[in-house]
Amino acid sequence: MRTCPRPTRGTTLAESQVLRRLKQLGDKNDLFRSYIGMGYYGTITPSVIKRCVLQNPGWYTPYTPYQAEVAQGRLESLVNYQTMIQDLTGLDVSNASLLDEATAGAEAFSMAYSINKKRNVFLVDEQLHPQTLALIKTRAEPFEVEIRVGSIEDMEFNEDVMGCLFQYPDTRGIVRDFGDVVKRAHDVGAIAACSADLLSLTLLQAPGDFGCDIAVGAVQRFGIPMGYGGPHAAYIATKEQHMRRLPGRIVGVTKDSNGNKAYRLALQTRETHIRRDKATSNICTAQALLANMSALYGMYHGADGLKQIATRVHRLALATKSELVSAGHRVSDGLFFDTLHVYPKDLAEVKARAADKQINFRYFDDGAVGVSFDEAMTERDVADVIAVFTGVERADCSDLACPEVDFGALARKSAFMTHPIFNTLHSETELMRYCKYLENKDVSLVHSMIPLGSCTMKLNAATEMEVVTMDEFAALHPFAPSEQAKGYWEMFDEITEDLCKITGYDAVTMHPNSGAQGELAGLMTIRGYHIANGNPQRKVCLIPASAHGTNPATAAMAGMKIVAVKNCGDGAIDMDDLAAKCEKHSKELGAIMVTYPSTYGVFDENIVEICDMVHKHGGQVYLDGANMNAQCMLCRPGDYGADVSHLNLHKTFCIPHGGGGPGMGPIGVKKHLIPHLPSHPIIEGPNQGSGGPIAAAPFGSSLITPISWSYIRMMGARGLRNASAVAVLHANYMADRLAEHYPVTYRGAKGRVAHEFVVSFAAFKKHGILVQDVAKRLQDFGFHSPTMSWPVNDSLMIEPTESECKTELDRFLDALITIRHEIQEVVDGVYPAEDNVLVNAPHTAGSLLATEWNHSYSRDKAAYPTEWLRQNKFWPAVGRVDDKYGDQNVVCSCPPMETYLD
Amino acid sequence: MRTCPRPTRGTTLAESQVLRRLKQLGDKNDLFRSYIGMGYYGTITPSVIKRCVLQNPGWYTPYTPYQAEVAQGRLESLVNYQTMIQDLTGLDVSNASLLDEATAGAEAFSMAYSINKKRNVFLVDEQLHPQTLALIKTRAEPFEVEIRVGSIEDMEFNEDVMGCLFQYPDTRGIVRDFGDVVKRAHDVGAIAACSADLLSLTLLQAPGDFGCDIAVGAVQRFGIPMGYGGPHAAYIATKEQHMRRLPGRIVGVTKDSNGNKAYRLALQTRETHIRRDKATSNICTAQALLANMSALYGMYHGADGLKQIATRVHRLALATKSELVSAGHRVSDGLFFDTLHVYPKDLAEVKARAADKQINFRYFDDGAVGVSFDEAMTERDVADVIAVFTGVERADCSDLACPEVDFGALARKSAFMTHPIFNTLHSETELMRYCKYLENKDVSLVHSMIPLGSCTMKLNAATEMEVVTMDEFAALHPFAPSEQAKGYWEMFDEITEDLCKITGYDAVTMHPNSGAQGELAGLMTIRGYHIANGNPQRKVCLIPASAHGTNPATAAMAGMKIVAVKNCGDGAIDMDDLAAKCEKHSKELGAIMVTYPSTYGVFDENIVEICDMVHKHGGQVYLDGANMNAQCMLCRPGDYGADVSHLNLHKTFCIPHGGGGPGMGPIGVKKHLIPHLPSHPIIEGPNQGSGGPIAAAPFGSSLITPISWSYIRMMGARGLRNASAVAVLHANYMADRLAEHYPVTYRGAKGRVAHEFVVSFAAFKKHGILVQDVAKRLQDFGFHSPTMSWPVNDSLMIEPTESECKTELDRFLDALITIRHEIQEVVDGVYPAEDNVLVNAPHTAGSLLATEWNHSYSRDKAAYPTEWLRQNKFWPAVGRVDDKYGDQNVVCSCPPMETYLD
Ligand SMILES: Cc1ncc(COP(=O)(O)O)c(C=O)c1O
Ligand SMILES: Cc1ncc(COP(=O)(O)O)c(C=O)c1O
Ligand SMILES: O=C([O-])O
Repeated sequence: MRTCPRPTRGTTLAESQVLRRLKQLGDKNDLFRSYIGMGYYGTITPSVIKRCVLQNPGWYTPYTPYQAEVAQGRLESLVNYQTMIQDLTGLDVSNASLLDEATAGAEAFSMAYSINKKRNVFLVDEQLHPQTLALIKTRAEPFEVEIRVGSIEDMEFNEDVMGCLFQYPDTRGIVRDFGDVVKRAHDVGAIAACSADLLSLTLLQAPGDFGCDIAVGAVQRFGIPMGYGGPHAAYIATKEQHMRRLPGRIVGVTKDSNGNKAYRLALQTRETHIRRDKATSNICTAQALLANMSALYGMYHGADGLKQIATRVHRLALATKSELVSAGHRVSDGLFFDTLHVYPKDLAEVKARAADKQINFRYFDDGAVGVSFDEAMTERDVADVIAVFTGVERADCSDLACPEVDFGALARKSAFMTHPIFNTLHSETELMRYCKYLENKDVSLVHSMIPLGSCTMKLNAATEMEVVTMDEFAALHPFAPSEQAKGYWEMFDEITEDLCKITGYDAVTMHPNSGAQGELAGLMTIRGYHIANGNPQRKVCLIPASAHGTNPATAAMAGMKIVAVKNCGDGAIDMDDLAAKCEKHSKELGAIMVTYPSTYGVFDENIVEICDMVHKHGGQVYLDGANMNAQCMLCRPGDYGADVSHLNLHKTFCIPHGGGGPGMGPIGVKKHLIPHLPSHPIIEGPNQGSGGPIAAAPFGSSLITPISWSYIRMMGARGLRNASAVAVLHANYMADRLAEHYPVTYRGAKGRVAHEFVVSFAAFKKHGILVQDVAKRLQDFGFHSPTMSWPVNDSLMIEPTESECKTELDRFLDALITIRHEIQEVVDGVYPAEDNVLVNAPHTAGSLLATEWNHSYSRDKAAYPTEWLRQNKFWPAVGRVDDKYGDQNVVCSCPPMETYLD
Repeated sequence: MRTCPRPTRGTTLAESQVLRRLKQLGDKNDLFRSYIGMGYYGTITPSVIKRCVLQNPGWYTPYTPYQAEVAQGRLESLVNYQTMIQDLTGLDVSNASLLDEATAGAEAFSMAYSINKKRNVFLVDEQLHPQTLALIKTRAEPFEVEIRVGSIEDMEFNEDVMGCLFQYPDTRGIVRDFGDVVKRAHDVGAIAACSADLLSLTLLQAPGDFGCDIAVGAVQRFGIPMGYGGPHAAYIATKEQHMRRLPGRIVGVTKDSNGNKAYRLALQTRETHIRRDKATSNICTAQALLANMSALYGMYHGADGLKQIATRVHRLALATKSELVSAGHRVSDGLFFDTLHVYPKDLAEVKARAADKQINFRYFDDGAVGVSFDEAMTERDVADVIAVFTGVERADCSDLACPEVDFGALARKSAFMTHPIFNTLHSETELMRYCKYLENKDVSLVHSMIPLGSCTMKLNAATEMEVVTMDEFAALHPFAPSEQAKGYWEMFDEITEDLCKITGYDAVTMHPNSGAQGELAGLMTIRGYHIANGNPQRKVCLIPASAHGTNPATAAMAGMKIVAVKNCGDGAIDMDDLAAKCEKHSKELGAIMVTYPSTYGVFDENIVEICDMVHKHGGQVYLDGANMNAQCMLCRPGDYGADVSHLNLHKTFCIPHGGGGPGMGPIGVKKHLIPHLPSHPIIEGPNQGSGGPIAAAPFGSSLITPISWSYIRMMGARGLRNASAVAVLHANYMADRLAEHYPVTYRGAKGRVAHEFVVSFAAFKKHGILVQDVAKRLQDFGFHSPTMSWPVNDSLMIEPTESECKTELDRFLDALITIRHEIQEVVDGVYPAEDNVLVNAPHTAGSLLATEWNHSYSRDKAAYPTEWLRQNKFWPAVGRVDDKYGDQNVVCSCPPMETYLD
């Protein structure tokens, strides 16, 4: 491998220096007041939520809650979120968040498509937010589906129509009555989907109330800063009958082994890691942290508080309208909530005065001006709008009209958020305690290492996280004129240049906001490339059996045909099989999706040959960058032959996992692919090509990008290389110590593993001990299990990362070795197969303190299998969760209150 | 009572508005680079400590760790702190922090005085920091002690000399060899005390190594921002033989009821609440939170890291010196650590260029310039100093000399911080986990209400806390020219005006940095008043038996003679006794110290009459303001007759208790006392009189003042009044519900209690159940006990505050009522007096999981006395601590490692 250039300009920075530089960059962003709307609004994050959640590693460092027993806190919070969404939308079931409103709209389209597979037309109202429309077009393009855009009331619904989508209130701000549209859709068996503003739903008829099948939308204005585009959560909710088609994660209620209420991810058979190319969506990382923040915002304010906020916002708009109309401006007809659609007497004058006052409006192509109000605004902000339109300043706002709210037939009648959880936490004291109560139920990086293979649970340094709560970055609207975001753009310039140097690619786009979105961006780029070269038939995508579930799911979304490639016994790709498949599909070969080092935890020695072979047959190489943590400044995808990769910034580059999101999935490409990269309908950015957009915002989740930027600046080339080297060293140390006790399934040619490795538990199955039992028993030690039965069944995949010290590695190894002895006790018959510390794990304090004790082992053995646990014991909140029961009795909203804290 | 005026200007502010205003005020502070030194230095707070401790309510909301079993986290941290101080100073025992370096110097003087009571001279080196010297003079003044100032090497040590104090390195920065001075002191039986810079001790001979008996100093530069004066901790350490004379709190190691290691406050018989007027010091609230931060800073860096930091700082000074000398400036002779004492060629030029470059130096009266370097500085800062002195800018710093460090005979030889705890937490991951591990052992306001009578454990809102980590406030040196602190001064103006309106006083000084310091400031003000009026004999201080221990301790420090006043059976002051005492001491009557509402939890109906009577006899009324939370905007000390009060801003005005500090104790006075208020030797501030200083910094712990300011701005007059009304309502609700189960000892004439009340457990003593058992049993419910056996033995004093909701009040009441039933079971003989859930409380998980269970009650009854505990159980980390064992086997440093986390 050739020596890598230094990725960072100048010297590496110390923590305090990086903070100073961030401040300087932040100061280059101009914080104009935003009245732009379009799905992004000013909001007030309650300080208690900011402090106890967003700035608290106990909340932002845990992984997605697949190990339910040590994730009850976040799971409960996500059920609260789902309940809030269900209530506000008037629908039966919500998932636990999507990435942004535009992808949520695309997911609504996908659901309609999957429900009405035979149909080929999807109707979209022309007053949809333009970024949502653009995204739906991207997502429909690989299929033979026509996206028909028009005024939805005037469009024809017939048997070809799978479904429709409209914005409520529409993108101009006008509140239209879509009741008839829904009926007409239903008359022909089409799905009616609505993209609805969550705050407006506190005052307006809910989508479910007027019959919609699906509702989607942003939850950003529930306390999540705009952040120049993200991260914030988007919601999707539907009727019960479509529940199993909902994309992404859903939290449900079940019972545990002690018969107590417990939460866990429900209906996982829908998820990409199970359905693979049959999945309706490739979503994996979502926006759990932000969804949780919005749920807490909902609890803090409660239904009445939210209504008050909405009413205030609406009144600001009403007051503005009456003044503008008096002043002779034309305000478009119809009801509105927070947004006015105005034709000013003199547009140029308005623009000039707005710029003067550092005010951003939305400027429509036809000369209209969009003016959206939000929670953070006051009468003063109304007065300033009026001054911009009229030229007349107003010192005193007390004479502004305070008009009556009257939505007539469209006024909300149904109650919402009536559950006690939304009616008991309105004081900071109570909310703070609830946040801590939830936090303390969950294992996160503040407790112990979380050696999840493929997930790279490394340190999310406090310095890196500072920026997330800096106004200079947090308060920007993503569609603000680009010259107001100079700090951001400078940072994007720097980080993309650094990522190019790290990966060996020629360009990086920051657009995709998750790994899976990066995959889609990458495959769509490849698709564009083949089409441009006159090879539209190149749709075969080779994917090894070991690939992450998002790979096949994404390939399917990109309209590709998945062909599996075998793995050899040593975990490497079977070169003969690869050669055969390449040969066979030579004419249609579009791409291979490969992970390096492989998902089996080895550096595949043939990687260069693999890339060459695929290229020879006209295919492109998509290299899944999830394992970049093993190779920074050691080797580069762009050097060994890959054409495109996504980088999970939430793995290698220190964005915290947030309990299931946010994430960032920028992609790097070689030069020939640059012209085919995604574009954005509103903001013209660097490295944009002819592809459609993949995410709502031009730079994805901009606000968290500085986390990765800070990491790179503090590490420098040397630091990055060192981190990867140590990550690999740690994995090898662990594999070698464990090898005396468990088989390490795969090793490379030199007997070494990469930065992660697979350990098999298959041999114990015949003794009644499953890998799940080991995973749950680890909880009794205060550890989160490694990745379980992926990519190999009956195995754990262990990735220590470079962030852990040897003491911690040993603590974890000792736990696994102690468990090996406990397994042996079962094998040897010391404890029966049906009653031992493994199959009964995890053990809650409550279950161990039962007056009667009828187990074959002692309470002490269950609780304290090792001495240090006596000093530092983490108690799982519930016993083993019953997934089957939960999936047979699906409940995805807050259960009745008696089971709560009283 | 007359109606109070509105205390705040304009309207009350919402959270987001207060943050905006704080930002504006912050921007009015000019952040010049500080080379002033004098005990305050730039430092880098590691982000992980800032985030996990300073911004974490789990760390800043707990009370002083008197309930050891649910405070093991902070206690362990304070033992780490003590060990670090002992190691660095080379002395045997450290306390758990003092308020600031100057008061620490005064405490060293007090210790010397208490050791050598018969002697009347204390020698002070003239190169002591001026604020320390001034404070010692204040503290010596009430006694017949002469403070003799001179060049200590030249001063006479004789049998009159109780002790001496010098600065090391001295205030000019010069490192002198005080070995001889110490010997000469010891030759005459005098105490040698040293005020030493902690960072320099990593390179210099430790005070203990050259024989000092006492060392004091600031720990600010160990990661605590300067904060325009505070809060930061100061240390005091001494030899084992003087241990029992150490002021303040000391944490020691003992064992618990299960025989395990446990921490708790040691030797409490020294503390003011026990010793009262026999105490050597009145310190109560100290700086626990900041001491803990500095200990974590020490662990993060370790001995080697600290040495590296110190060496870098020293090198910056060395490099500067060589350039200044070459340029013809005169640098004073002698070794130095971080500070140069320079006679520039042209002082005016230096001053002008420094101002230009926004640089603050220390300017001595004789034309010398003090230049101190710190951890946060780089070669760039050296270059800028040189440019200021020489007028020559330097683009490149790489040619600066990097001279050898050579302290010769004064170089440190002894090892320090060798304990593993200082050698295992050098990564952010490890330190974060350690912070959380400690946090999770402690009950704080994030878990449950802490109804500590007299302590006012109310909400410390996240918005209020924001300012503490805002650079605009945190980075100012307290002796920076006042015109650079306009934001602070504006805030001081506003808050003192508000506090005047709230209290009815004519002036408030922000100078004292704790309640006890406020008491001293108040009594010294009264003293000054009497002396100015020709009544120096007015030294009798009437103090009711129920008074807080700091009252008599403070009166003693102010040179007063304490005369006790009786309380009646109903808790009120015995008016006959008061009349008799006033009569008897009429000529010498200096003051009464009284608390209103009283420490018995009632509004004493005679308060006006009490004030009148004392005034009639020529005395002044000191009203202890700790109970201000019961009366804001309801009644005002200044209206009902008091002359002076301290306000614990860390009670009524929302500064968090921090586990034992920081605090703020501003005092309000009536007009006649204004001329006698404290002054400050360096900064001329508002409301200063002829009194000596009480604290090191002119405005005490400036950085936390905005917490109270924010609270007042957000509450407004109406909010404050409402808070007090609700606080009183809550107490009455609780008293009434409890009265059916326990006797409420005192009620006012109308049958009502104030904002707190006393409940007696005396009746159960004969059944073997003590109030301690109830306090410890509350821990099994996850509650921190109310104030125990103060001011009445065998009682709990309960103060709910307004911050708690009814659900929480009821949860606590239900716990106490359940305990009443458990007591009854013992009374009724259901469980034996020597083995029941009360006397064995608290129960750790470990003790309950023992394989053998030989108690009269079930494990379940011990752990889950009420249903909600099954959802939300806080486990005490240790069983009942053995105070006696600990005080007989005093260990105040980190115990051997096997007992630690491994
Ligand atoms: C190998 C691999 N590819 C792709 C992904 C998908 O990334 P994301 O979860 O950000 O969508 C993941 C992670 O979850 C992964 O481990
Ligand atoms: C009644 C009373 N007076 C004085 C004090 C002393 O205040 P501080 O602890 O701030 O020194 C306290 C509290 O601790 C108190 O409760
Ligand atoms: O701190 C108190 O002792 O109240």
